[in-house]
Amino acid sequence: MHLHEQNLSRLAGARCAVLGANGFIGTNLCIALHYAGTTVVGVGRSQRARDVLVDKVEWRRADLATGSAFEHAVRDCDFVVHLANTLLPTPSNAEKVRDVQENLIGTLTLLERCRELGVGKVIYASSGGTVYGPQTNTPISEDVLPRPICSYGVVKHAVEGYLHLYRQLHHLDYVALRIANPFGPHQMPHDQGLVAALFGKALAGTPISIWGDGSVVRDYVYIQDVVDAIIAAMVLNEPDAPRIYNIGSGVGRSVNDVIASIQAIHGELPEVGYQHARAADVPVNVLDIRRAQTYLGWNPATPWHDALRATYIWLHDALGASAKAQSYAIV
Amino acid sequence: MHLHEQNLSRLAGARCAVLGANGFIGTNLCIALHYAGTTVVGVGRSQRARDVLVDKVEWRRADLATGSAFEHAVRDCDFVVHLANTLLPTPSNAEKVRDVQENLIGTLTLLERCRELGVGKVIYASSGGTVYGPQTNTPISEDVLPRPICSYGVVKHAVEGYLHLYRQLHHLDYVALRIANPFGPHQMPHDQGLVAALFGKALAGTPISIWGDGSVVRDYVYIQDVVDAIIAAMVLNEPDAPRIYNIGSGVGRSVNDVIASIQAIHGELPEVGYQHARAADVPVNVLDIRRAQTYLGWNPATPWHDALRATYIWLHDALGASAKAQSYAIV
Repeated sequence: MHLHEQNLSRLAGARCAVLGANGFIGTNLCIALHYAGTTVVGVGRSQRARDVLVDKVEWRRADLATGSAFEHAVRDCDFVVHLANTLLPTPSNAEKVRDVQENLIGTLTLLERCRELGVGKVIYASSGGTVYGPQTNTPISEDVLPRPICSYGVVKHAVEGYLHLYRQLHHLDYVALRIANPFGPHQMPHDQGLVAALFGKALAGTPISIWGDGSVVRDYVYIQDVVDAIIAAMVLNEPDAPRIYNIGSGVGRSVNDVIASIQAIHGELPEVGYQHARAADVPVNVLDIRRAQTYLGWNPATPWHDALRATYIWLHDALGASAKAQSYAIV
Repeated sequence: MHLHEQNLSRLAGARCAVLGANGFIGTNLCIALHYAGTTVVGVGRSQRARDVLVDKVEWRRADLATGSAFEHAVRDCDFVVHLANTLLPTPSNAEKVRDVQENLIGTLTLLERCRELGVGKVIYASSGGTVYGPQTNTPISEDVLPRPICSYGVVKHAVEGYLHLYRQLHHLDYVALRIANPFGPHQMPHDQGLVAALFGKALAGTPISIWGDGSVVRDYVYIQDVVDAIIAAMVLNEPDAPRIYNIGSGVGRSVNDVIASIQAIHGELPEVGYQHARAADVPVNVLDIRRAQTYLGWNPATPWHDALRATYIWLHDALGASAKAQSYAIV
């Protein structure tokens, strides 16, 4: 039996709210939790759950931006998994006040409801890619001082601070996962994410355009491994274990590496164009994942090429015909 | 010539806005800047500058809580020194959303105005006493991971994050000073601050009441040394120097130590009562000040007993008669 399955069996019968359920990570997590026998409450801004989740979750509409309706969403929940964010990293810099208003104050409102209603534990999707900012040494451990260069990262880090505070003051347990660059099924080419975007272009046969010269190094982690980490964080039952974990592959790959891997699966790719690098992009981001390996008993178990192939097959089916993919935005 | 005086002479002719000018640190700073030949803009929520500042500052009314009127306050300023906060550490925990709303978003609004209006540098009063939270090793260096246990500390740390961001993205220079427990003239017994409170009780002859058993250790730093540090931060002109500095004495003293020192100056003290410790209080907080010594060329030069004596004499005059002091709140 897999560690993953052992953990899943420990969640049977629990009630879990997932904020951002219709998103890429949320969709995968809800499916896994559903098949583990938990009652899944999907929470998001949409009117309803996306098609694949409709028969798997109870839908509750709630919005970080207004902080409304959280009590309805988290009541009687053992776990709340918070994957929601109203802004992406790069645009967050142009909307700092909005970022704080929606994502920090929105999360504080959520935590307040969790505390009032006796939620057992909050799992928070922090950001391995933005919280650290540029660092001299890689892989980056959780012990280094975060120096984010985007508002998104400052806010994620501040949320971690409030999670620590709620645990200290109000005994609301939490785990914050600093997730690297996740990829896999249910990530669409127009979402954030290099792998899905490149596959989308490859399948559509449209030109590929990337920021910078392709040397930017990131830590790409497969979604099933991320879901495993979230579940390991949910069942973590060590009061003295750390509460913040890097979740990545621990391996750095350049954009050009990823392009080469994708070419190995798909065959010849469309032309690759290079654009100016973005200010919020750090040159290298690779996570040291030893803490999660030690305390969560977790490993990014899926081999890179297997993960890519599964992603490719899923996208191929999801996109249906290459014609559909023509309209996807540039990477 | 003192280092202090050298620095002051480099500020002559500059225009400096001081947020929180009517507060304890602000009053001392405005006086020093005025005599250094700078144009001082006092900024605060009050209608006017306090008496001692009336002939020394141009007053501008502005409020962090609403973020209003900052452009009026910081226009044409070379420096903005931000000493304001709308909540004290302990009450901040009961008002986390308000804390973020007023002190984080308020400061973001201020920074946005500074950027738009071309302010040269922002000096921010962060908090050596709350940003770090409980730490295993003391003295605490700037290199350790902050783990605040009050909202006040989380917000101060988040402001530091945004200051870093504004420097990276918008080239607005800054220095953040993590100031320990300042004391000295212009701190009143009903303000925050153990030394003034104890002297107030001693002078009034009213019973002394402290939180905990008197073993809590803090780093008490004299206000003239703090003013020197702010001025050293203003004139710092090294692009590669760190932007965050501990400002303390580097020496730890327990509450009982302080009581003994005060008794040595005042003579026999009123009865001391002990109350329950507060959740937001860490047991030990002493700052490692080597970074400020190295890069700011700064030292907490005033000997402890000289500083206490000067504080005592000032308070004795300020309180006038012991009868006046009867009404001061407990420590």
